[in-house]
Parts: sequence; structure tokens; C-alpha cells
Amino acid sequence: MENVQEYFRKNRDEHLRQLKEFLSIPSISSLSVHKEDVQKCAEWLADQCRSIGLENVRVFPTKGHPVVYADWLHAEGAPTVLIYGHYDVQPVDPLDLWETPPFEPVIRDEKIYARGSSDDKGQVFMHIKTLEALLETEGKLPVNVKLIIEGEEEIGSPHLPEFVEEHQQLLAADCLVISDTDMIAEGRPSICYGLRGLAGLQIDLTGPKKDLHSGQYGGGVQNPAHALSELIASFHDEKGRVAVEGFYDRVAEISEAERKALAALDLDEEEIRKELGVPELYGEEGYTYVERTSVRPTLEVNGMFSGFQDEGIKTVLPAKATAKITCRLVPDQDPEEILQLIEKHIEKHLPKGVTYQVTRFDKGEPFVTPLDHPAIQAAARAYEKVYKVPVTFTRSGGSIPIVATFHKLLNLPVVLMGFGLPSENVHSPNEHFHLENFDKGLLTLSIYWHELNNSLR
Amino acid sequence: MENVQEYFRKNRDEHLRQLKEFLSIPSISSLSVHKEDVQKCAEWLADQCRSIGLENVRVFPTKGHPVVYADWLHAEGAPTVLIYGHYDVQPVDPLDLWETPPFEPVIRDEKIYARGSSDDKGQVFMHIKTLEALLETEGKLPVNVKLIIEGEEEIGSPHLPEFVEEHQQLLAADCLVISDTDMIAEGRPSICYGLRGLAGLQIDLTGPKKDLHSGQYGGGVQNPAHALSELIASFHDEKGRVAVEGFYDRVAEISEAERKALAALDLDEEEIRKELGVPELYGEEGYTYVERTSVRPTLEVNGMFSGFQDEGIKTVLPAKATAKITCRLVPDQDPEEILQLIEKHIEKHLPKGVTYQVTRFDKGEPFVTPLDHPAIQAAARAYEKVYKVPVTFTRSGGSIPIVATFHKLLNLPVVLMGFGLPSENVHSPNEHFHLENFDKGLLTLSIYWHELNNSLR
Repeated sequence: MENVQEYFRKNRDEHLRQLKEFLSIPSISSLSVHKEDVQKCAEWLADQCRSIGLENVRVFPTKGHPVVYADWLHAEGAPTVLIYGHYDVQPVDPLDLWETPPFEPVIRDEKIYARGSSDDKGQVFMHIKTLEALLETEGKLPVNVKLIIEGEEEIGSPHLPEFVEEHQQLLAADCLVISDTDMIAEGRPSICYGLRGLAGLQIDLTGPKKDLHSGQYGGGVQNPAHALSELIASFHDEKGRVAVEGFYDRVAEISEAERKALAALDLDEEEIRKELGVPELYGEEGYTYVERTSVRPTLEVNGMFSGFQDEGIKTVLPAKATAKITCRLVPDQDPEEILQLIEKHIEKHLPKGVTYQVTRFDKGEPFVTPLDHPAIQAAARAYEKVYKVPVTFTRSGGSIPIVATFHKLLNLPVVLMGFGLPSENVHSPNEHFHLENFDKGLLTLSIYWHELNNSLR
Repeated sequence: MENVQEYFRKNRDEHLRQLKEFLSIPSISSLSVHKEDVQKCAEWLADQCRSIGLENVRVFPTKGHPVVYADWLHAEGAPTVLIYGHYDVQPVDPLDLWETPPFEPVIRDEKIYARGSSDDKGQVFMHIKTLEALLETEGKLPVNVKLIIEGEEEIGSPHLPEFVEEHQQLLAADCLVISDTDMIAEGRPSICYGLRGLAGLQIDLTGPKKDLHSGQYGGGVQNPAHALSELIASFHDEKGRVAVEGFYDRVAEISEAERKALAALDLDEEEIRKELGVPELYGEEGYTYVERTSVRPTLEVNGMFSGFQDEGIKTVLPAKATAKITCRLVPDQDPEEILQLIEKHIEKHLPKGVTYQVTRFDKGEPFVTPLDHPAIQAAARAYEKVYKVPVTFTRSGGSIPIVATFHKLLNLPVVLMGFGLPSENVHSPNEHFHLENFDKGLLTLSIYWHELNNSLR
């Protein structure tokens, strides 16, 4: 490992320069105005893969944004690893809250600031640089590697399942490794063994055919903003539980053992409360903060709007009101069924005087991996050699909808080894990535491929 | 009257050209970016007053937008009329719904389209042209006239009360005439004898100090969009009544006679429903549509927003949620007290896990005038001579907050004779004004000043 370590040291400035180049491409997958940037980002990534000696590099077009594929398959007799990541990023609004522009990466206090630095470009880039270092210093990789980096993760990977289904042979492997989750805290490396699923939808309520004068018409017709508020309020009960009928029917109750393991994470709720800046933590009665954010399902409004939004007032009775909602799901909830239950709920609780329309967004199944799998245990050893502390095993509240698809279609164990931190403003202004974990992560991954070869061979 | 009628006919094109000039000034009082336009509009109006022979023309600065004053006081022994109007207009969003730009007036199908064409520049302009016609054809006016045209009506006239209080001598008159209300329908001239009052406020709820990843944090903290929805839902009960404690305490119940008069308006609710495009009319149980929109108080959300509002989804748990609300009030509700009751309600019903801030907007007292006042009866005669049908007496759901102030400070009877139509998209895209009522209105006002001289002398 010393040669590899030396390689990373010697090339650090150049690697960071390349990372900045990667981060400066505004590959926002949800906004059609950035479609060309997403394509450009895929090409950049493919060039990187070629330049470090990966083979069969391809930018596969899809009906949406492209998938980048590359491999190196000369570790005869060694296991094959599929590495998944994404090069697309979240939108950047509110732009005025960014201290420096989201696509002009800068390093401050040993953190690199840019949209995508932590989620997930920074972590994708670490995988590439790890492979580069091993190829440069050892002349080969300890395992066979296939990279699949997609451009639609932030919009729910609408076209990846089809791609995976069509390329099962190409993607066949012994284990899937993903770096798109968080360490539990600074200095506490974590392996995530479960992810929540996702079910997203938009509700549009329509009242009058145009905005009305709230004096002349107010009191005469339903106000869609009132109706939407009632509807949203009806989604939860006074105990913070989701009040959609049947929502919890398939939720696997967590075992006492798992509750103990989660409690052992020893998160300081008062510390969390202070860091988030809320007057109090709040959520489903009977569960701790860590349980509510990892093993319990949720229904959250991500955005809502109706009527006048500029400064001052405008005395209108709005014609429309919209809410954007996503649910986080846990085993064994089914995203399709959950969307159906919500639609039933809307139909049943729709206030008088408005009509509604539901648009479905992305779906993803929840996922949990056995903790004692050798691929996971090898990852734990790699972490411990670099970070010098025991690894924490967690379940994340986030969703990587494609994980369940990979598992189902390719029948793979999944190892989620993330190097981000919860404080890194993922999906928010001033996203950043700690260079300490960039440096340690490169080493951890280098060691991991050797450990994995020993475990799975 | 024949000379006057002939004058209007001969000068119609020139008058419409001038009106277009007036309407092309974007005097949006609520948006600070238009401050200079509002000033320019006041100057334009003052020039008009000078050019038709009014005297003592002044553009009075205020702490906000200016007040335009002008008079003609040579009708010895005749009563003095104070004419009030406003030259400011509402914002124009959503701009993409306008068929032609809001500040590029055009005439289509004998209607003039522009922001302010009906509310209230078009009607202010009619008053000026009426005075011009009488001065040009009869060499004098039948009554003494004082004009006060303000630039802050659409933001609740924040500085006019102070102005009126400081200029009681200047504004002293026998009667106040305002043309800023609607006719009840095409061909049905109406005199409005009551206006609802106004109380506006903005509620800002704050949860976490920044937008959070809804996967990582969802379920752990209160979502301000949920909290706002609950709060808004709590403002009404299941019978469509405002559920703010004490809200109805001072509401004067309408008499059977008044209910009968309102019923006699003979509005076709099914026709209204169709025109508004709603699946059903909705509002406070136990009252008809016309009662709910004129003699009953309301609480309406004019705008609300939280979190992500662009296309697609963004999986955030929003940091903030905002609602803009106005109440329409009826005698004897007090705007100040209503705002206090709402603030108490918010404090009491605030969901857990968020903090709130209330910003007060404008206030205006409700107002009702005796129907049998000679100034009102004179107006009815003037209308009937031109429109050849009996006048309808109405109470409007809208608010002209300054009316109560004038009444209180100057002790004046108020005559609300409006020439707008409810279908003219006031406060909405494609505002317009029917030229038929422009033409008939000019004649009606010309006759009214003579009738008023006979009644009040």
C-alpha cells in the first residue's frame, strides 16, 4: 500500500484539479435546460475512464440521460465488482444562499465546495482515482471491475432499470459497491446496510378557471390553497403518523436487536436539534430520531405553491394549488401500492369545490442487506485499517432506488460504503466534501479491493 | 346635455388616445421597481387636470407614492363634491396569460385591454373627461369639484389617512363620489352602498435553518409545509365558517329586508358557477353566494409557498413556508382586532417544531351608506336617464379601505358609482374595460353633477 499512498500524495494537486473540472459541469438532470451539460459530463467521465486504462468505455444513450460504462477484466480467478455511482446533480436553488457559485468549485478549510462534491461526483471520482493508482503502481487490479455511472439518479433513475435488464450479461458481477451514502459523523466510518425506498407524486388542485379578485369572489367559491392545505393536513395524524389508510400495513416492525443497534449509534438528539436549528425535533410518536429517519417510512411535502408569491400582497383567490410529495419507504412497502393508497386518500379527502390531478414521479423499492456478508465484512476491515476505529453499521433514510433493481435483476450483494458527511449540505446550498475523507477514502478503497479478493475468491 | 353628448362624440378618438397613454404607464404600487413609474403617472394625471382647466393642481409627495389634487370652485352656492380615485394598479403576473402586454393598451371588440383599464385608471379618466366636456361646452361646472387621486390604493392606502387628516380643510366637501366598483352585470347600472373592509397579513413559518435532504432528515423534524397546511386548515371549520375565535363577534347580522334585497338581484348561481369554471360553488353554510361575497366576512389565502417549485421533484424538507392572507370584513368588525384574533389563533394552533413570524399588511374598515341619501338618489336618476333601466343597489365584496377614513375624518356621505363589470378581469390577466360603459358613463356623470346640484343645494 505504500506505493499507492505515495502515488496519491504526489498526484493530489492534479487529482483535485481534475475533480474541480468534473464538478464545474452543471449536470442537473431534473432541468431540461441542462440536458447538454449532462451529456458533456458523461463524455468527460468516459474520457477519464479511458485515460486511466479502463477498457470497453461506452457512453450508452438512454431515453433520458446517458449511462457511462467501463471495465477492467484481467484479474483472472478474482471476483468481479460492479461499481455504481451517478454523475448527475440536484438543482441549486436558492442560488443566493451559496457563498460561492455552485459550479465554480473552491477549496476552503480542506473542504471542496460545489454542487455534487459530496453527492455523488466526488465519490465517483475517488473510485476512478483508486483504480488509476492501483494500475499505475501495481500494474493491475486485485479484482475485476465494471463501472456503471448513471446520469438520472437525482430524478429517480427512470431509465436505468430498463438498461440493467437489457445488459444483464455486461453487468454480471459478484458484488455491487456504491459510494453514495454518509458516514455517521466525522471520523466514524459507516457501512450502510439498508436504504429507504421512494414514491413521489405531484398533486394539482384546480378551482376557478382563473385567479379571482378575493374581494369580489372571496367567500363564494372554494379557495384551492385552502383545499390543498386541508388535504396536506389530512396526510398526518396528531401523533405524527402518516394517516393514509393502509400506509403501514406492510411495514416490517424493527426487532429489539435492531433497535438496540440503532440506539448504540449513540446520537445526541439535543446536538442534532441545535445543528438543524429547530425549536424541537418532531415526528412519529414512539420512535427515536434515528429510527424515524432510517427505519420508519415518511410522507413529506417537498414543495407547495399557490397564488401570489412576490413581495407585498395581491388580493387574489388563486385558481390553482400544487404540492410535490415524496414518501420514503421501508421493507416491505411497495412503491406502486403506496402511490395507489395516496391517490385513494386524495379521492376520499378531496375538499369540495375543486378538482384534482395526480402526476406520479419516481419510485424505488426499499432495501436491506445481510450484515454478515463477506463483501461487507471486507469493507469493514478496509475502513478500520485506514480510520483506526471500528466501523458503524447503519440504515440510511435516503433512497438509491436503483439498488433494489440491481439486487433483483443481477442477484448481487450490495455494499454501501459512503465517504460523505451528514453536514455536507447535500441537496442544499453550499454543498461540500471533506478532503480528509477524500484522502482516506482513496486508501480505504485501494485496500478494499485487495480484501475483497481475499474474501470472495 | 346635447352639446356635451356631441362633444364626447367628436373627441372620442382623442380621448381614447389619451386613455391609452395613461394606461401605458406601469404604475404598480406594490413593486418598488416601479416607484418611478408611479411618480410619472401622477405627473401625467396632474398635467391632464391642468390642461382641462382645473385649478390648484398639486402632486403631493407622501412617505410612499404621491397624491394628485386639483379643484374647480366657482359654482357659487352649489354643493362641493370630492371625487376620489386611484392611478396605481395591481401587479401583472402571471404575465404569460396576457393575450397582449398589460401596458400596451389595445381595443378589441369595443373593449380596451390593459392593466388598470377597469380598476381604476379608466374610471378616473372618465371623471376628468366629464369635467372637461362640461367646462368646454357649458363654460362652468354645475357643482364645485375637488379631485383627489391617490397612488397607493392597491397596497391599502397606507399614507392617505395621514394625508386626509392633515388636509381636512382642503378636502372639505358635501359628498364623496367614487367610481371604483362594478355594475352588477352588463346593462345593469348599480350603486354600491357598502364595501367590505380589509385586514391583511403574512405568516412565515421556520423549521430547520436550511432546506434538508428529505431522505436523510425526513421524519426527524417538523416539515414547515406540513405545519403551514395544518395552520391554514385550522382557519376554517367544516361548514366553511372562519374558525378564528371571536371572528364573528362584531358581525352585524343582515336584516330580512336586506336579504330580500340581495335575493332580488336574482343572480343565477348555476350561471356564476359555469362562468367561474368551478365544479360547485362553496362557502359559509346558510348563506347564498351573493350574501357570502358581499355581506359576510371572509379569510382567504392569496398566496402560499414552500420548498421546491420548479419542474420535476427535488427531495428537500423545506426550511420555510409562507402564506399571504387577507380578510374581508363587514360592519362592525374592526381590522385591528381581527388581526389580533388571527395572531392569537396562530399562537394557539401553531404546530410543534416550527417558529412563526407575522407581518401585517394593509387594513381598512368596512363601510355602509344610507340608501335614501339625496346624493345617492340623484346618482340613481342620472343612471336611469342614460341606461334606461332601474338602478340596482348593491353591497360589494371588495374593499376601498380609504372610504371609511374619508367618512370618519370628513364626515361625508359616500356615493359609489362604478362603471366596471365583474367579468373585466380586475386583478387578473387580460383586464379590460367595456367602451360602452365608458361612453355611457361620461354622460351619466355629466348628468349627475346637474342632478346633484338640484338635490343638495
